[in-house]
Amino acid sequence: MFHLTVRDHVMIAHSLPHPAFGPAQNLHGATYVVELTLWRETLSEESIVIDIGEATDVLKRALGDLNYRNLDEHPELAGTLSTTEAVAKLIAERAATSLGDRDLNKLDVTLREHPDAWAGYTMTLE
Amino acid sequence: MFHLTVRDHVMIAHSLPHPAFGPAQNLHGATYVVELTLWRETLSEESIVIDIGEATDVLKRALGDLNYRNLDEHPELAGTLSTTEAVAKLIAERAATSLGDRDLNKLDVTLREHPDAWAGYTMTLE
Amino acid sequence: MFHLTVRDHVMIAHSLPHPAFGPAQNLHGATYVVELTLWRETLSEESIVIDIGEATDVLKRALGDLNYRNLDEHPELAGTLSTTEAVAKLIAERAATSLGDRDLNKLDVTLREHPDAWAGYTMTLE
Amino acid sequence: MFHLTVRDHVMIAHSLPHPAFGPAQNLHGATYVVELTLWRETLSEESIVIDIGEATDVLKRALGDLNYRNLDEHPELAGTLSTTEAVAKLIAERAATSLGDRDLNKLDVTLREHPDAWAGYTMTLE
Amino acid sequence: MFHLTVRDHVMIAHSLPHPAFGPAQNLHGATYVVELTLWRETLSEESIVIDIGEATDVLKRALGDLNYRNLDEHPELAGTLSTTEAVAKLIAERAATSLGDRDLNKLDVTLREHPDAWAGYTMTLE
Amino acid sequence: MFHLTVRDHVMIAHSLPHPAFGPAQNLHGATYVVELTLWRETLSEESIVIDIGEATDVLKRALGDLNYRNLDEHPELAGTLSTTEAVAKLIAERAATSLGDRDLNKLDVTLREHPDAWAGYTMTLE
Repeated sequence: MFHLTVRDHVMIAHSLPHPAFGPAQNLHGATYVVELTLWRETLSEESIVIDIGEATDVLKRALGDLNYRNLDEHPELAGTLSTTEAVAKLIAERAATSLGDRDLNKLDVTLREHPDAWAGYTMTLE
Repeated sequence: MFHLTVRDHVMIAHSLPHPAFGPAQNLHGATYVVELTLWRETLSEESIVIDIGEATDVLKRALGDLNYRNLDEHPELAGTLSTTEAVAKLIAERAATSLGDRDLNKLDVTLREHPDAWAGYTMTLE
Repeated sequence: MFHLTVRDHVMIAHSLPHPAFGPAQNLHGATYVVELTLWRETLSEESIVIDIGEATDVLKRALGDLNYRNLDEHPELAGTLSTTEAVAKLIAERAATSLGDRDLNKLDVTLREHPDAWAGYTMTLE
Repeated sequence: MFHLTVRDHVMIAHSLPHPAFGPAQNLHGATYVVELTLWRETLSEESIVIDIGEATDVLKRALGDLNYRNLDEHPELAGTLSTTEAVAKLIAERAATSLGDRDLNKLDVTLREHPDAWAGYTMTLE
Repeated sequence: MFHLTVRDHVMIAHSLPHPAFGPAQNLHGATYVVELTLWRETLSEESIVIDIGEATDVLKRALGDLNYRNLDEHPELAGTLSTTEAVAKLIAERAATSLGDRDLNKLDVTLREHPDAWAGYTMTLE
Repeated sequence: MFHLTVRDHVMIAHSLPHPAFGPAQNLHGATYVVELTLWRETLSEESIVIDIGEATDVLKRALGDLNYRNLDEHPELAGTLSTTEAVAKLIAERAATSLGDRDLNKLDVTLREHPDAWAGYTMTLE
C-alpha cells in the first residue's frame, strides 16, 4: 500500500462552550498544522498516489474558509463544539468530496494544535 | 475512526545487560519523548475522543515513577531488559488500565529515544 | 558565554485591525510556541545559568494571563496591534522583571506562530 | 503489536520527465529523510523487534547506491519515473530482502522530501 | 532588538567538483529548507519588523530561479562551487537587494540540507 | 559572517547531587542531541566554513567517550555537577582543541536534553 501526505496550516479563533473544557471555554485560538494523508493500493500511470501539487490544492481548498476565521461564527460550525477532532472530520469530508473517484483506499486528516497534542480523523474511501 | 495523541517525556538511566546490545550494556540513559495515541470510532457527547487534559494526566501518571529513575532498580523492570519496546509496553498497559472502559478501540505508546530511532507498542482495547 | 532555553506554548485569539494585515484583520488565533533564552557569562555555583524548573516557572508566569484568551480584550494589549513581535516584547519584559538581578547578560523571547514564521525580541540585561 | 523505526537520509538528483510534473520535469534534486518501520507481534528473546544497530545497517545498505547519485542514471531506476512513491517501494523491497525471515509482520518505508510533503510504501511480510 | 524569520524550501541538483567533497563530487541534489531572518531595532508603525507576507515574497523571489534546477548550469553559479555556504550568501544578497532601505540592522539566510547539517550567511545592513 | 552546524547525539546516565536539582539528584539519564556551530568571516578556497564530514568527525570524537556512559564515573566529570551547561562547555573545549587553527571566529555547542529545554556554551576563537 502506498501513502502520500501533504501539509498546510490555518490560524483560527474559537471557543469550546462546555464545562468539560475548562479555560478553553474562553474565546482563544490555535494554529492547526494540518496533514492530509492518502492511501492507494497501486500507483497511477505516473507512478504516484496523486500529484503533490494537486493534493496540496485539495487541502488548501478544504481549509480556505477556515483560515483567519472565528470558527464560532462559521456557518458549518456555529452551534457545534469545534474540537480538533470535529474540525479534522470536516476537513477530511471536504477533501474526500473534492478528490472524487480516484482509486484511493483511505484518507486521514490530522491537526497538530500544539507540540504536545494532535488529533485526526481517518475514513475509508471506496 | 478518530484519534488523539498527547506527548510527554521522561529522563531515565538504564543498562541493557545482554551481549546483543554492545556498548548499551553499560549504564547509560535516555530522554524518552512519549506519545500516547487513542482511537475511537465515534466521538463523545463533547465531540472528543477524550479530553486532552485527561489524556495528558493518564500519560503523566503512567510515567510518574519512571522519570528521573534508574530503570535497573525499578521494581517492575529490575531483572528484565528495559528496551524501548518493553518500556513502551509497560506504559501502554498502565495507560490502558488507567483509562478503563471508555469506548476506545486502540491505544499506542511510542517512545522516541533519539532523532534517528523510536519504537512503540499498539494494543487493541475492547 | 552560556545560554539556556526553556519552551512553553499558549493558545490565543486576536485580530490585527490595520489594512497592512489583510485577512489577519479578522478575528483569528494562534498557537504560539514560546522559547525563553537566557545568557550568562559564568555559571552559578550549581554549574547552571539558572535552574530549568525555575526558568520554566518564570516563562509560565509570564504567559499565564495570555493563555486561552482573546488578546483584543487583554488589558495590556487592548487598543494596540498584538503582533508576534509586540507579544514577544511583552513576554520578554515580564520575564526580565520576574528574573530580577541574577548576573544574566541577555534575554530573548521567540514566538513560533506557524511552521514557516516566527519572531522575537532580544534585550540586554545588566 | 510492537514497532520500531530507524531513520537515515540520502541526497539525490533526478528528473520526472512526464508533463504531469510541471517544473519537476527539470533535473533537480532532493534530500530524502528515510524512515524504515518494522512491526512484530511478539518480541525476540532480547525483548526487541530487531536490534536498532542492525535495522540501521539494513536501511543504510538499502540506501547505499542511491546516495550522492543522479537517479536518472541509476541502473534500477533509469527509464522509470523515480517518484517518491517509487523510490520508497524500491527501498522497502531491498530492506525486506535484506531482513529475510525474522517473524516480522509488516514493513514501511517513508521518504520525507520537504517539510510539507512525504510519501511511502507499506508491505506485509510473512 | 526585534527579529522575524520566514521559511521556504527549494529542491535542487548540483555537484561539487573538488576532491575535498568525496562522493559529493557526483551529480546529486538537496532539499534546502531556507530560513530568512531579519533584525530591526525598533518596530514599524504597524508594530512589526516587516510584514510576514512581504518577507515571504522576498524569500520566494530570491529562491525562484533556483527551485527545480541544476545549479551546475545556473548562470550565477556555473563554474563555482555551489556549497551550502555559497548558496546561502547568494540568497542573502538577493534578499538584501530586494528589501532595499527599511531600517533593518541585520539579515541571515540559513539553509538546512539534511537533519544533521545546516549552514548560513549573516550580513549587516545599514 | 558564515556559519555551519553539524548535529549528533549521545545517551548518558548521570545524577546531579545538589539539593537545587530536586528529583534530578537521583541517578537518571538523557539523550543529548548535540549541535556544533562554527563561524568564519570568509570561506576557504573550497567555498566552505569547514568540510561537513570533517566537522561531523570533530564532533563525534568530542562525544566519543561520553556516549553510553555514566557521567558520574567519567574521569573528567566525576565529582563535578555534570549539568547540561557544564557538559556543553566540555564538548566545546574539546572541539576547539581538535579544530586547531583554522580562521574560525566562534564556536557554539548546544545540547538539547528534551523538547522543552536546551543549553549551550559559545566561545570566541582566535
